[in-house]
Amino acid sequence: MRILLHRVDGQTEPWVKDFARHLPEAEIVLWRAGEPHPPCDYAVVWAPPEAMLSDLAEVKAIFLTGAGVDAILKFDSALPQNVPIVRLGDAGMGVQMAEYVTHSVLRYFRRFDEYETQTRAGQWTPLPPHNREDFAVGVLGLGMLGTRVLQSLKEFGFPLRAWSRSEKSMEGVQCFHGADGLDTFLRGTRVAVCLLPLTKETSNIFNRTNMCKLPEGSYLINVARGAHVAEPDLMALVKSGHIAAATLDVFRNEPLPVQHPFWQEPRITITPHIAALTLRRESVQQIAGKIRQLERGEPVADIVNRHQGY
Amino acid sequence: MRILLHRVDGQTEPWVKDFARHLPEAEIVLWRAGEPHPPCDYAVVWAPPEAMLSDLAEVKAIFLTGAGVDAILKFDSALPQNVPIVRLGDAGMGVQMAEYVTHSVLRYFRRFDEYETQTRAGQWTPLPPHNREDFAVGVLGLGMLGTRVLQSLKEFGFPLRAWSRSEKSMEGVQCFHGADGLDTFLRGTRVAVCLLPLTKETSNIFNRTNMCKLPEGSYLINVARGAHVAEPDLMALVKSGHIAAATLDVFRNEPLPVQHPFWQEPRITITPHIAALTLRRESVQQIAGKIRQLERGEPVADIVNRHQGY
Repeated sequence: MRILLHRVDGQTEPWVKDFARHLPEAEIVLWRAGEPHPPCDYAVVWAPPEAMLSDLAEVKAIFLTGAGVDAILKFDSALPQNVPIVRLGDAGMGVQMAEYVTHSVLRYFRRFDEYETQTRAGQWTPLPPHNREDFAVGVLGLGMLGTRVLQSLKEFGFPLRAWSRSEKSMEGVQCFHGADGLDTFLRGTRVAVCLLPLTKETSNIFNRTNMCKLPEGSYLINVARGAHVAEPDLMALVKSGHIAAATLDVFRNEPLPVQHPFWQEPRITITPHIAALTLRRESVQQIAGKIRQLERGEPVADIVNRHQGY
Repeated sequence: MRILLHRVDGQTEPWVKDFARHLPEAEIVLWRAGEPHPPCDYAVVWAPPEAMLSDLAEVKAIFLTGAGVDAILKFDSALPQNVPIVRLGDAGMGVQMAEYVTHSVLRYFRRFDEYETQTRAGQWTPLPPHNREDFAVGVLGLGMLGTRVLQSLKEFGFPLRAWSRSEKSMEGVQCFHGADGLDTFLRGTRVAVCLLPLTKETSNIFNRTNMCKLPEGSYLINVARGAHVAEPDLMALVKSGHIAAATLDVFRNEPLPVQHPFWQEPRITITPHIAALTLRRESVQQIAGKIRQLERGEPVADIVNRHQGY
């Protein structure tokens, strides 16, 4: 069996070693532009270059080494139509997202960001606490990651809400769905957490109109894709105070350009796309398991629905 | 029935109103130095002035409006010996402590403090993540608050440890106890969380000797009492890097004096004793319930053991 591997970061050696451990029967073939390679059974990629698409048409399945699928679905009809695309299941990303979002929600709820500003100024001033019942946390996207994040937040007793494209339910979480449900969801959400897949429908979902539906003094946490947020709209609403603060891990352009106004706005917390890293060992182990399932003719989880876009 | 009330902050009105709601049969008598008052059945205090001690000898029970008892036990033999002292049970403090400590642990584990420093300098640099298995969180004090904090941390999969004076156990937590257990506990703890009662035995427990037993690059979170930490020793160990960073909510002198070196040390995070606030409504409701139990001749929880000091 041969596996065609492409890494955006060029760091292939540790992946080859991990495959040797978890799938010793497989030969790993590194994809290089313009270089011929023997026929392969499977491909492992995240954001394949366009030149690779014809090679992807030859394999039995394409495995993605990330939770998001926008970096491959962007090729649309140029993608081989009959090859299943399999995205990564949890593989250690869920707990990382839970950590990132829990930290950020607690930071705003307990005003630790304001205390830090005080400390730098040498000020000792207890601040009136926020009310828990006024601090509804609403997660957009109720997939594997959104569910895990909400699970962790339950521990702290915040009112919890979720919004998804299609109808879903989760115990202890008030669920909304579809275009009709978005309005009501936003109007009752104090901290909006974006964990949506990036599709035509969700692109720019945090535009001025939608962000204005959030209550005055709300918070935004974006751990999905930069294109979910209309960045100039967010900047204006933070300046006006309608959005009290935002924590962003993803941006339209990454690395965030040096001259971007977000860098200068103290109420915007920036992290360099580290909310949930792909854990190589866990990912290889998962992909190896799924390849074995396919070889035995069994169904596998996490097959991408191209029509839905995730 | 009469209840003698003393508030350090002088804000008695809302307490009187809440008692009127939860214990309408009681008359609230405000204690004022040198002013006579009718005989009372119960006292509600936190840090009573010395002049109040003789009045406390007359009541059936003394209720504290805080979780810590050092502010009253400091009077030692001058305290009425046969009047039970009842401290506050959870009353909303547990979840606050869980929030505070979880935020701080996640901040260090995910290096959010370092990312914030980078952001202020306009730097986009992903940092290598810490290993979860190297990030053992050890809580000192396994009472109501320590247990609640550990419960919340379980959600994130850190190795969990606890140390207490007497032998205790908690599922999923490696427990140590007594003077003999402290050494082993400290040597395997990466993040030490102090939630101990302040007693002769625990005063200065975070001195140089004990802090040096923590592994290189450890973290300290103190949400108990300032006197648990030898402040100059901590400062020196933070400067040397042995302690990577500390988050402190309590200090030897509060408010922390303007000239204190902690203010100038970026690796020390300061909050103005707000980790867990006494929630007035919840506290009055709890005290009213306990008074009813005592009136019916029933036993009440949270009676202070003066010999143990908590």
